[in-house]
Order: sequence, then C-alpha cells, then structure tokens
Amino acid sequence: MRRFYTGAGWITTPEPLHNSHDLYRFQTLNADSILVDNDTITWVGRAGDAPEHADAEIIQLNGMGVTPGLIDFHAHPVFADTREEEFQLRTQGVTYAEIAAAGGGILNSVKKLRATDERVLVERTRNYLDNALAYGTTTMEAKSGYGLQPEAEYKMLRVIRSLNDSHAIDLIPTFLGAHEFPPEYREDHEGYIQLLINEMIPEIASKNLAESCDIFCETGVYSLEDTKRILSAAKKHGLKVKVHADQLTPLGGTVLASELNALSSDHLEFIDDAGIAALQKSGTVAGLLPLASHFLRMPEDPPVRKMIDAGVTCALATDFNPGSAMCESMQMVIHFAVIRFRITAEEAFWMATAGSAKALELTDRGWLGDGALADFVVWNARNLQIIPYHFGVNLAQMVVKRGEVVVRNG
Amino acid sequence: MRRFYTGAGWITTPEPLHNSHDLYRFQTLNADSILVDNDTITWVGRAGDAPEHADAEIIQLNGMGVTPGLIDFHAHPVFADTREEEFQLRTQGVTYAEIAAAGGGILNSVKKLRATDERVLVERTRNYLDNALAYGTTTMEAKSGYGLQPEAEYKMLRVIRSLNDSHAIDLIPTFLGAHEFPPEYREDHEGYIQLLINEMIPEIASKNLAESCDIFCETGVYSLEDTKRILSAAKKHGLKVKVHADQLTPLGGTVLASELNALSSDHLEFIDDAGIAALQKSGTVAGLLPLASHFLRMPEDPPVRKMIDAGVTCALATDFNPGSAMCESMQMVIHFAVIRFRITAEEAFWMATAGSAKALELTDRGWLGDGALADFVVWNARNLQIIPYHFGVNLAQMVVKRGEVVVRNG
Repeated sequence: MRRFYTGAGWITTPEPLHNSHDLYRFQTLNADSILVDNDTITWVGRAGDAPEHADAEIIQLNGMGVTPGLIDFHAHPVFADTREEEFQLRTQGVTYAEIAAAGGGILNSVKKLRATDERVLVERTRNYLDNALAYGTTTMEAKSGYGLQPEAEYKMLRVIRSLNDSHAIDLIPTFLGAHEFPPEYREDHEGYIQLLINEMIPEIASKNLAESCDIFCETGVYSLEDTKRILSAAKKHGLKVKVHADQLTPLGGTVLASELNALSSDHLEFIDDAGIAALQKSGTVAGLLPLASHFLRMPEDPPVRKMIDAGVTCALATDFNPGSAMCESMQMVIHFAVIRFRITAEEAFWMATAGSAKALELTDRGWLGDGALADFVVWNARNLQIIPYHFGVNLAQMVVKRGEVVVRNG
Repeated sequence: MRRFYTGAGWITTPEPLHNSHDLYRFQTLNADSILVDNDTITWVGRAGDAPEHADAEIIQLNGMGVTPGLIDFHAHPVFADTREEEFQLRTQGVTYAEIAAAGGGILNSVKKLRATDERVLVERTRNYLDNALAYGTTTMEAKSGYGLQPEAEYKMLRVIRSLNDSHAIDLIPTFLGAHEFPPEYREDHEGYIQLLINEMIPEIASKNLAESCDIFCETGVYSLEDTKRILSAAKKHGLKVKVHADQLTPLGGTVLASELNALSSDHLEFIDDAGIAALQKSGTVAGLLPLASHFLRMPEDPPVRKMIDAGVTCALATDFNPGSAMCESMQMVIHFAVIRFRITAEEAFWMATAGSAKALELTDRGWLGDGALADFVVWNARNLQIIPYHFGVNLAQMVVKRGEVVVRNG
C-alpha cells in the first residue's frame, strides 16, 4: 500500500541523530509532500520532484504543517481508577505525604489495580490511548508499577502488550515493580527486593513482558543502594534500565543512573552539577516531565537551559498517571515546557521527538525522512511556534501512524 | 420543537441567583433527564416522572454528566493575527514592556486589525468560536479594542454582531476603545479621550453596537481620572461599564469600578482590602482570568479565598487574546482556577456559570431548571471533580445550545 501525502504548508523535523551527533538541530525541509510505502517513508520533497507514484492513494494536506509523531517516553497509562478526590484535597492544602498516610497516593492505585479484571483494565486504558493519539502521540512508553506483587505486575504488562497489539499507538513496556514498597512488605523491604530480583525480574525478562526496568529512587522509597542492586539484576537479565530520580530531594539518583548507563533519568527538579556532568558523559537522557511539576504545584524546575548548554540530551513526556499528572496530551507538555523551562518551540519539539526516541533507543522514529517510520502529525497551525502558544485546544488535524491516517479531527 | 435529553449519570447546577441570594451554592439534582421546548428548559427530573413528551426527539446521554453551558464573560476573540513570535521572545526573557517598545503588544494587533477586511476577520474569529464551543462555551463576551479609531472599532463590533447572528455561541459585545492609546494620539491623550467621549461612545450606543464599555485602567495607560470620565460618559449614553483593574500594579481601579457600579472589575492580581470591601458592598463581580497569569508567568494571583469569604461574587473567563492568553477553552480556565486559586471544582464551575452570568447581567442562563435557556454541556466524566483534574484533553462529549446539539465530540 502506497500513500502520497501532499500539499503541506511546512514540514519540520529534527535531523536524525544517526546522521548528526549535534543535539537540538531542527530543520524545515524544502518539501510539501511525503511518499509512504506501507509503514515507512520512502521520500520527502516537493510534489513536482516526486518519484513515480501512480498507484498511491493521494491525501491532501491543504497547507497544514507536518512534524514527526510525538513520542511520550514516560507514562503510567494503565490504572484501575482515577484519583480526583486526592487532587481536590491537595488543592485545599492537604500535602501529598498526608494523603499517602491516609491510604491515598500510589498505594490507593495499587489496591484498586489488584482488584480489577485484566479486560476492564484494557478497556479503561484504551480510552486514554485514544485521547493521546488524537492529540498527536504515536509512540508511548507504558509502565507497570500499580501491582507491586508478581501476578498483578504481570497482569499490567499483559494489558500493555494487548493494547500494543490492538491500538494504533506503539506501546513500549517498562517494568516498574519498584514504584513503591507494597503494604504487605512495609516491615520487610529486603523481602520485597528479593522478590523483585529473584522472581519478578527473571520472569519478566524470560517472557519478554518488558523492555526496561524502572525504579523510584527517592528519599523514603528506594535508596541509592537498593536502586543499584535492583537495576544491576535487571541488566543481568537483559533488561534496559531507567530511573525516577532527583524529583523531591537531591538524592543523587542521576549520577547513579549514569553509572548504570540508564536510558534516562527522569524528573530532575533537584539535579545538581554532578548529575548534569554525569548525564553529559554517559549519554543518559534527561527526562523532563513538566506536567507533574505543574500538577503538584512545585515551584522548582530542572535547570533545562544549563543541561542543553552542557550537551545533555533532554526529552519530554507526560508522566501521565492518576496521582500527579492526569493528562495524556503531549501538546500540553510542549506548552508547559516552553513556559516553565523557557525553551523555544523548536527545542520543545526536538525533545518530544528526537529526544524521546533516544530515551527509548528507537532509531526509526522521532524524525522524518527516507527510511523513517511513517508516523507524523498534521497540524492546523501556520508554523511550529503556534503550537506551544495556542494552548488548551487540539491543534492536531490529522495523525498518521505507520503510514495510515488514524485520526481526523474537526 | 421539543427534545427530551435522558439517561444522564448526573446533573449538577448552581442554584439560580434569582431564587437564592447565597453565592456558590451548587447542587446535584435528583434528575437524569431534561425536557426542552425550542430554546428553553421546561422540566428537569427523573425520566419516570417526566410530563408527556410523545412528540419530543429523544437524545440519549448514556450515563454522562450535565452542567450548564460555560459562560466566558471576558474575551478578545476578534483579532487579525496571532502573536506567537512575541510569545517566543517572552519565554526567552524579553519583557512585555520591551516587546511593546519594539512595536509589539496591543499596538501590533491594532496595526494589523486596521488593515484587515471585515469578512476576513469574521472567518478568522469563527474558527476560534468553533473551538470555544467544542470545549463547552455557550455564551462569550467579545470586546473590541484593537481598532482604537472610530471606523476600526465599529468594524470590530460589526464582526461581533455578524458572528452572533451566524454562530451558535451567543456573543455579548463590549466596546473597549480605551484598551490603549492609539499611536497617532501618543502625544495627545486628551484628544483621544475626547474622541471616545464625544464621538465613539455616542455612535456605538445609538447604533446598539455594544452593551458595555470597558477600559484598561492601569499605571501608564488609563488613569483613575480618565477611567471615571470615560465610563461616566458611557453610562450617560446607556451603556453598562466594566474595568480591567489592578492587574499589574495596585492602582485602585476596583474601588472606582465599584463606585461606578461596574458589572465587573477584572484581573485583580493586585487588589487590596479596600477593593475587596468595595466589591462586597457594590455587588460588582470580581473577574478572574487565571490563563493570563499563567501565560505571562506572573507569580501573583488574586486573593480568591479571601474574596469568597468576604461574600464577593467571583467569575471566571479566558481573557482569550493573542498577546496574553492564547486559549479559548473554559475547561483550561477551570483547571487553572482550581490549581492556582486552590478552589474546589464546585466553586470553579459556579464561577464559570452563575458567576459569569452575573458579570454579564444574564439571568436566563448559568443554571439549569425550568425556565432556563437550554444551554448545557454533556461531560464524559464520572463526576464534576474529574473535569479540572483530567486536563488538556476535551471532556465535553456534547454541547447543547438553545436546545439543539451543536457539538458531538468523539
């Protein structure tokens, strides 16, 4: 099946990282058309210069703009229930710690997740994926981490696999058994760590239920030493690793993540100079999640300009989850990144495409050109700068996934 | 034409202010159905108790929730062009004052507005109204203020009238000739004030081109004395009045607005106790515009809890405009109001319906019940609290305007 997308007003893309080692290079192509063969782009250029394509279906873009599909490299889209009552408490001044102590927080989601049928989880999650896709996300990482016991964690990873097979979005599964300590191991952290290392990680790796293993490295949750032990075990079993680090306190998780050659170290509100230097040296990606800072009303932001200047690869994601970032739209992420981090529209788009692709070690996407996966968004916007600026409404007019139009808005 | 909307999961509404003088009273009705005769609600209740309606068209709501249509009482939806380049400069640290000095800001919009054909303005604005409606706005105030000369201001008001006639949204026109001083009167402020008082206000009032007259009362723009003169003239010609006050400096515009019995005093980041007391005494509405504070990255917020506790009527609006709030979604306003002002979902919805209706002196809307205008939003949300919590995607499943389904999303 060939398709010829033509009549674009502009086509803008990061330079592919495999061709250029310079970060943040973004270019507007001398092009108005994209030729697609099945799921792959075979040519991008001016319609008048196009190779023979008499057999192709023609799709008119009517002067709209095109960027690569957005990649959400950090998300928790599988959960049994929303937590709007906690959100309301927090806006009234109750702290996250007080909510957790009253049975709220992650453990609230854990209790409900364990009790919810796999097929129900698939259908609930599908609705959120539909939204994400409609707003331009074509690839999403999806974490477990609300099970915190073997069967419930495997159930979450099967939900992710099932949705990857049945939904247009590509889902990249991550095992986050170390999201918290489960209530039944509150007095026996070592017992749960042993369970993670000796049972869950080997099982998940052998059944290919996840590509990566993630952990919440934070004061009061998993220590640096715990993180090192668990992620080392994951690596031994062939899993890639990543870390939630330096979000609430400056614990130093980013330096450790870099030493472990993690894919990314995420959150980073409290990263220090040693962390930045470690990321620059290791190539571990700085994972930026501005919706969580907004939703939790944190005054802190990661030192993004400093990281860019230091040659660190930054990536943007939603952190979509029912506790601290109830939003699946990457357009909202780009808006908040520009406002909070004082970066340009080009930098934000680079981070949400090329940067996110690097954070997932995906080389076939996050850019547009011959050989790239045909994932792209058609924007009802005169230029790229409009997209972070005109916020809160969906500017994606069309979403193309693996060559096919999967969303038409408006 | 009769229509019977039935099968709602919940129906929640402010108590109508003409029945109860208590502010912020919000109730979930013992109801799943709404009977509509042409543009008016004739009955709300349980389907089993419904009056005879064999002739009515049946519309199934499938367990979704219903609130009154959202009312955006402060918006600048008519403009010739977007200003994304200024937004990018501001995120890079250039100040609003520096941008204005370089020909940007309001005067940038003025220059382009004057040069743009009336029919072009109608079509550009229509796109934004479509978005606003799709996200739940059923009534919107629309200001002039980018013309700043007689013919250009009249042109804007004719654009608003034309869209009110041809678009589902009800537009309430406001004359904002005192938005800034035009460049040709930079050295002759008194000359422009005379033009406003002696030519523009009388002409607009006699032709019914606006219901109200608004002014930007701010240090460096229109002084308290200017404001008093201009709005007194407007009142003499039968126009209602309103004020942009206490946004950037604590000038005291709110006290003056209250003395003039203004409909509302809007922005209020720098309101003081005297301003709050004046609003309480006069009944002038406190107009809250959280998207502008966010967009301009202002650390200040109005003292909303203090105003609620003092018995001041607060209302919420987008302030939609290309310079300081490029967002036409009232869902986004409700989200930011809850996060920034620490108010509840119920309070935010009350302010976006009953409060906004009061700010426009509209008694037929902002509530649901027998005799109300049949303007309502059908939400894909289990309860009201979900709506500010699950942000950045459109949760309005259906929008009903004057009895008719005008938007079906998803």
